Amino acid sequence: MKEGDDATSYAKNSVIQKNIILASREIVKEAILDLYCSKFPERLNIAEMGCSTGPNAMLAISEVMNAIDQKRRELGIGPVQFQCFLNDLPWNDFNTIFKELPEFHDKRLDKDLKGSSCFVAGVPGTFYGRLFPNKSIDFVVSSSSLHWLSQVPRGLESGAEVHLNKGKINISKKSPPCVLSYYSEQFHKDFSTFVKSRSKEIVTGGRMVLTIIGRKVDDPTEEDNCFQWDCMANALMDLVSEGLLDEERIDSYNIPFYPSSLTEVMNVIRGDGTFTVDRLEIVEVEGPPTVGTDGVRKGDQWAMNLRAVLEPIFIDHFGRETSMDDLFSRAAYHFNEFFSRRNPKFTCFVVSLVRNDQKSSDF
Amino acid sequence: MKEGDDATSYAKNSVIQKNIILASREIVKEAILDLYCSKFPERLNIAEMGCSTGPNAMLAISEVMNAIDQKRRELGIGPVQFQCFLNDLPWNDFNTIFKELPEFHDKRLDKDLKGSSCFVAGVPGTFYGRLFPNKSIDFVVSSSSLHWLSQVPRGLESGAEVHLNKGKINISKKSPPCVLSYYSEQFHKDFSTFVKSRSKEIVTGGRMVLTIIGRKVDDPTEEDNCFQWDCMANALMDLVSEGLLDEERIDSYNIPFYPSSLTEVMNVIRGDGTFTVDRLEIVEVEGPPTVGTDGVRKGDQWAMNLRAVLEPIFIDHFGRETSMDDLFSRAAYHFNEFFSRRNPKFTCFVVSLVRNDQKSSDF
Repeated sequence: MKEGDDATSYAKNSVIQKNIILASREIVKEAILDLYCSKFPERLNIAEMGCSTGPNAMLAISEVMNAIDQKRRELGIGPVQFQCFLNDLPWNDFNTIFKELPEFHDKRLDKDLKGSSCFVAGVPGTFYGRLFPNKSIDFVVSSSSLHWLSQVPRGLESGAEVHLNKGKINISKKSPPCVLSYYSEQFHKDFSTFVKSRSKEIVTGGRMVLTIIGRKVDDPTEEDNCFQWDCMANALMDLVSEGLLDEERIDSYNIPFYPSSLTEVMNVIRGDGTFTVDRLEIVEVEGPPTVGTDGVRKGDQWAMNLRAVLEPIFIDHFGRETSMDDLFSRAAYHFNEFFSRRNPKFTCFVVSLVRNDQKSSDF
Repeated sequence: MKEGDDATSYAKNSVIQKNIILASREIVKEAILDLYCSKFPERLNIAEMGCSTGPNAMLAISEVMNAIDQKRRELGIGPVQFQCFLNDLPWNDFNTIFKELPEFHDKRLDKDLKGSSCFVAGVPGTFYGRLFPNKSIDFVVSSSSLHWLSQVPRGLESGAEVHLNKGKINISKKSPPCVLSYYSEQFHKDFSTFVKSRSKEIVTGGRMVLTIIGRKVDDPTEEDNCFQWDCMANALMDLVSEGLLDEERIDSYNIPFYPSSLTEVMNVIRGDGTFTVDRLEIVEVEGPPTVGTDGVRKGDQWAMNLRAVLEPIFIDHFGRETSMDDLFSRAAYHFNEFFSRRNPKFTCFVVSLVRNDQKSSDF
């Protein structure tokens, strides 16, 4: 994610991510209230996986705390001590989140002087692995993060001898079938590790609500699934044809992004066996409007949002000599062309899980 | 602390802080082994208060974990799960600490593949207040942080109508007696809040080792106690006489730094009553050598170390228009002059405490 809070930063360009959090709001609320009302604990350890940076970082966690505070007041129960863990990769911009915390605490204090305490900690590390001691977390929430794989799928790494996905940077209509398999296998491996890790960390009876950007249809090469990376690849190829970028740089690059199918998600959860599905919803989330209230066209907005996420990764791979302004202005052109023909929604799976009393497997 | 890791950063200029950590090493080790051997817990929650940034941030915590790992192997006991909380103010540079964590974990893994797990979290917030839920921490360590007050002492704030400490920025021979009282009162208030907060957070039988930069003599105006801020004030006054700085800026400024006396420290601990003193040492720590191995003079090195801590604070008060190069080169001159006459050591109190079973008072 792009650091800081200027016009092209992630903090200022995460509208879709916010819409996804809002779409899963009721399901998160239901899960935390189920958990709270089963034991009325005086202390709850809550973790957000993939908090990123900016105003969304504390959004899901805030809603969880507010839901409990409202309920305990209705029932006349005393305050809760929340320990809130915000997790993301070690190079996430935690400084920006932390600098906003004093204001966050002040606002909470304004609302209620005798309210619950909220102790915030940042947890740097990949969620495709262990982050917490055994049985130390009561509630986990993760919103639109699990489509990011832990790495470029095996077989498609930039150092591979043969480039299997020429002219593309993700699954596309023209990708050979093995590209699809490599992506699917990487997702299976990563998501299994995620579920196994949380299985160790969450207390029996604890809850986890995952909001996963997925795909409605089984075929991952359908245009509505692929348009984002096809448009980006087209923009990169524009730079190639203008002599601004070496084609080999695109051939050797595949982005570790995979919108899974519901079958793939459920196979992993059932295979692990330590979580029981309490509720499952398929939510369709609107992207930005075709023309925003500020007159900005959807394709331009889309390119801007994507830039906030991708700029650091792209600079890393394509080098500082590749102008991000050039690249994303061409991407905006392709997005506008696509949106003039199609208007797909985002598909999300919201899965509300309960940690059952099965022993978790070692790994 | 100055962010990043360039030549003038805190990360590269914290030699004295490192020496202080090393001086208290044995006492910390004794305390953690006492704790470990009393119950042989499979999980320990450890917190460092005022971790700052750079290589020292994980030093004390690493030593704690290593001591336990060595002991448990001697005794043939299985691994421990450590949850390590690194605390500092919200504007501390946590990003730099977090980016170094993957390397830190790799090094631990190298040493022992079947070793204890270490889960690291950053906790942004003032330690002069609550940071953790009730009774959730087993071991607290704090090294050379508690001489930083929570604020400029009441009565000496930059907005005060009358400037009581003209031409100085801390306690000095020429300061009126009320300046001394204001500093002492602020320390008492802050340290009391610190002890009360930790008293709530640490489990009964839990331990806390504090290494506090203090003073050996009761008189805080003795030259060896005051030289640091006297030299800095002289450097600032040099800028005034050269027309580079407005004198009012110095008159209105007092740095929230207070090396306490042992009496002051012990009064607070005894007054609180929830901690029993297990061990108390007065340690004298050497500063940098008069001339370093690299040929750098002690006064220059001292100015450089201090700059790493002070630059962000000074830019905040004296403005970007005040050249830090100008200021710290003049400071180096005054430090060299002082060190040519005197060679004081730093006095530290290392206090090893046990949380007893007294109820903590509300506040």
